Amino acid sequence: MLTPDDVDFLDRQRVGHLATVNAEGQPHVVPVCYARVGAWLYVPVDAKPKRGNPRSLKRLRNLRERPDAMLLVDHYAEDWQRLRWLQVRARASILESGAERVAAFDALERRYPQYQDMGLAGLELPVIALEPTSVRRWTAAGTAGDVQGATRRPE
Amino acid sequence: MLTPDDVDFLDRQRVGHLATVNAEGQPHVVPVCYARVGAWLYVPVDAKPKRGNPRSLKRLRNLRERPDAMLLVDHYAEDWQRLRWLQVRARASILESGAERVAAFDALERRYPQYQDMGLAGLELPVIALEPTSVRRWTAAGTAGDVQGATRRPE
Repeated sequence: MLTPDDVDFLDRQRVGHLATVNAEGQPHVVPVCYARVGAWLYVPVDAKPKRGNPRSLKRLRNLRERPDAMLLVDHYAEDWQRLRWLQVRARASILESGAERVAAFDALERRYPQYQDMGLAGLELPVIALEPTSVRRWTAAGTAGDVQGATRRPE
Repeated sequence: MLTPDDVDFLDRQRVGHLATVNAEGQPHVVPVCYARVGAWLYVPVDAKPKRGNPRSLKRLRNLRERPDAMLLVDHYAEDWQRLRWLQVRARASILESGAERVAAFDALERRYPQYQDMGLAGLELPVIALEPTSVRRWTAAGTAGDVQGATRRPE
């Protein structure tokens, strides 16, 4: 589902935007760091424990109630011919323990030295696992297609 | 609801992320350009007509069915002490004509020379009007508070 171009783009960008839906059916979006392991994407919950229980964060509450998520990764430039984005619709699960969570933290620490510095993997935080269910992609230059193979304007 | 700091931040950033919910209750998020007029925010629908009817864009279909939207404007930096975001929950309406739409296009063209170059205002496109209903804000440095007055970690 993710093409080599998608993977390259995901790995080069530094921030994504994770959209979820709350219990009232309202949209919610937050900037997130993410790392890719194979075809899966992982988003850490990096709230400091002193700020309250990180497991009560709204994005986690939302995902427990509705596992549908969308991760949007885009590149903005004042030269709009260089605009590009990738929309990943995904099924989310929350990992509290296990080997997959360890691998996710490894990938996050490799990608973000900031997480290494804070010792992310040792903080006993959950991580959001995103299993892509469909991918759409768009570039202003029209060189990429969406999952149906056609180039479209952003929706 | 928008503080002077919020307004300054919104006016300086160049891209936002608009989250909506589709008819199936799934989240949707797309990068958008926006302009502020007073306390309202406007997002153009800049699909080229040749690509199909811009009024059928998913974000418009979503908003007609569910007027709840969230516009997230954030700043990313590798120095995470400089991270900042503003979440604007809003009621969306779609303007097809009228003075408010003209003022929105004026503001968009002033803010983005790219829109001037393409003659946005002359393209007879609709514009999304976002009426903020609540605002939350966050900075890594902890200098800003949310609408309840407390500084929080991102959710």
